[in-house]
Amino acid sequence: MTAPASYSWEATDEEVAARYGVPLDRIARFDLNTSPTPPDLAARVVAAGRFASPLSEYPPSDYRRLVDAAAARYGVGRDELLVGAGADEILDLVAKAFLPPRGAAVLPTPTYAMYRVVTEQRSARAIAVPRLGKANGWRLDLDGVRKAAREAELVWLCSPNNPTGLPEPPGMIERLLTGLAADAEIDRRPAPVVVLDEAYAEFVGISLLDLRYGYPRLVVVRTASKAYALAGLRVGFAVARPETIAVIAPYRPPGSVSTVSVAVVTAALEDDTVLEANLARVERERDRLAAGLRAAGWEVGPSVTNFLLVGFGSRTHAVEVAEGLLRRGLVPRTFGDGHPLADHLRVTVRDSDENDRLIAAARELAQVPAAAS
Amino acid sequence: MTAPASYSWEATDEEVAARYGVPLDRIARFDLNTSPTPPDLAARVVAAGRFASPLSEYPPSDYRRLVDAAAARYGVGRDELLVGAGADEILDLVAKAFLPPRGAAVLPTPTYAMYRVVTEQRSARAIAVPRLGKANGWRLDLDGVRKAAREAELVWLCSPNNPTGLPEPPGMIERLLTGLAADAEIDRRPAPVVVLDEAYAEFVGISLLDLRYGYPRLVVVRTASKAYALAGLRVGFAVARPETIAVIAPYRPPGSVSTVSVAVVTAALEDDTVLEANLARVERERDRLAAGLRAAGWEVGPSVTNFLLVGFGSRTHAVEVAEGLLRRGLVPRTFGDGHPLADHLRVTVRDSDENDRLIAAARELAQVPAAAS
Repeated sequence: MTAPASYSWEATDEEVAARYGVPLDRIARFDLNTSPTPPDLAARVVAAGRFASPLSEYPPSDYRRLVDAAAARYGVGRDELLVGAGADEILDLVAKAFLPPRGAAVLPTPTYAMYRVVTEQRSARAIAVPRLGKANGWRLDLDGVRKAAREAELVWLCSPNNPTGLPEPPGMIERLLTGLAADAEIDRRPAPVVVLDEAYAEFVGISLLDLRYGYPRLVVVRTASKAYALAGLRVGFAVARPETIAVIAPYRPPGSVSTVSVAVVTAALEDDTVLEANLARVERERDRLAAGLRAAGWEVGPSVTNFLLVGFGSRTHAVEVAEGLLRRGLVPRTFGDGHPLADHLRVTVRDSDENDRLIAAARELAQVPAAAS
Repeated sequence: MTAPASYSWEATDEEVAARYGVPLDRIARFDLNTSPTPPDLAARVVAAGRFASPLSEYPPSDYRRLVDAAAARYGVGRDELLVGAGADEILDLVAKAFLPPRGAAVLPTPTYAMYRVVTEQRSARAIAVPRLGKANGWRLDLDGVRKAAREAELVWLCSPNNPTGLPEPPGMIERLLTGLAADAEIDRRPAPVVVLDEAYAEFVGISLLDLRYGYPRLVVVRTASKAYALAGLRVGFAVARPETIAVIAPYRPPGSVSTVSVAVVTAALEDDTVLEANLARVERERDRLAAGLRAAGWEVGPSVTNFLLVGFGSRTHAVEVAEGLLRRGLVPRTFGDGHPLADHLRVTVRDSDENDRLIAAARELAQVPAAAS
């Protein structure tokens, strides 16, 4: 049996510091699509220490208050929502519920690495369908996905897509769902479950949650890690029609989200202003960062998210730039040899100081011969 | 395909309050084997708010400080330890790593419900081997387990065992491991992986961690939820030889434990006094609670843990007592119809006030005719 895929991390702060001789407090994470600071209320809720139950008790098994807050925030019913330890646990639960061993799942690539990981770890087959490429905004290959899905139980979508930074064109996912339903009817089989990861949806201000009414086997994934700037608390959600949630729910472990995380994320979802500051920062800094990097000669793709995808023309050049950044304590996301984006780097939009450091580094790296950078 | 087993929760505080008309602050959880209060340092660490990284960042992917603290506490190497979101995630990761679809796992029953759940959710078969019964201290059936294990990839052990409250007799698990290794040699196959859940080991003061040297496919499970009184933070550990940890590690998600949980549990493991108060409370209160319940006519089994198993002679009587307790806001652990302990209840050793309420309730329930209780 071939070993299934597993997730590849970039080096930790300590590892980068040790390997490149950079002071720990000069390490800046451009690789994780996180935010530089959490919302102010996080510190307040944590410091107040008034949680729904003492830390010696398990979190409430139904996460009632958190479910209430998330359902209100996303405009869905309480029975249309399921809580997980980050979006990653949601992906795992969905795979357990809908992917039989030796089953198959379709993924339009390049995309978030965990879809392949949870598929293969489920002993199922990942069918990669290449996206249409940079010139076409990396949009998915509608016919290719439909064709592959005829032999699959599950389709992994991500819009806006990580790491390419753009949403599917308007109407595209709806057309895909209609097509999948039609194909399933012809084939006299249940339509595949479609997972739509909307981890970055808040940055573009559009959600396709309402498509669940027309396609009951749609599972939308949301998270507190990105726009809410609370990645350290590990809270994610599945949103789907009640009958679909009911199939996933038996796979949920007795309690994987900590009492503290429940309290802070509940408060963040109930607050009307938490998103504003972070979305404003991303919008302002994204344009500034992209302009600065382009001025330094980097080929920066368009993005509606909190990260930028940068092409370097060759794997060698991308690796050289990554090394140059790491020597300055700036950690980019790299893509392994053989990855369709092996000649790209992905960088997160951080705060103005860190973004300035990245722009300065890009300028410096452009001015010296590659080998000496 | 038959639906796999899923975990059954007792009702939440709110559900008990609503169903039985009990004020919320009068609900006491005797069903979860938790502790009534967390260690003092938990509140201090949380209130200080100085975590290894801002809450907007993911926890460090290697949980370095937490691994250091746990390795020092358990007396094992850093490469012999793996962190999970509670012991439950560890069980899931071990099943993913070692249980192929359509494989089989042995469980000496009755035992913790999650072993069957993760086995069946992996599309593997759970082979139950009944324990030897109350008169024999619920110890495992050595020959029965060995026999069943010849067709299994994994064996789930729990010592001290939940819900029966006793450890295996001295030498029993070592004998089992020796036997499993011998059987595997005869059968010319790899020895099964043995998971030894030591969630309650601190209460008895004995760990069988050292058996990993003689049986490299032993995975010991430890947790911060029980003796450390930090169930709300969801932190558990796998401890095994480095080569066994290396097989499990690829299944670990990028980060399932929150930054806050990492900080508090690290501090608790580094502190030499955290366990003392809780272990002293359990020792003192366990004897007092058992004596009080026995005086009220309950048949309380022996226990080295923070819970007691009580027999009621018939399912009807057990259900009546459970109802009587719930009407007073006291939530026992019940076992479903058809469970070998369907005529038993399990109750956690709580603090003296709550234990007094349970003793008083037992007395009251003994004094009225069952139907009117």
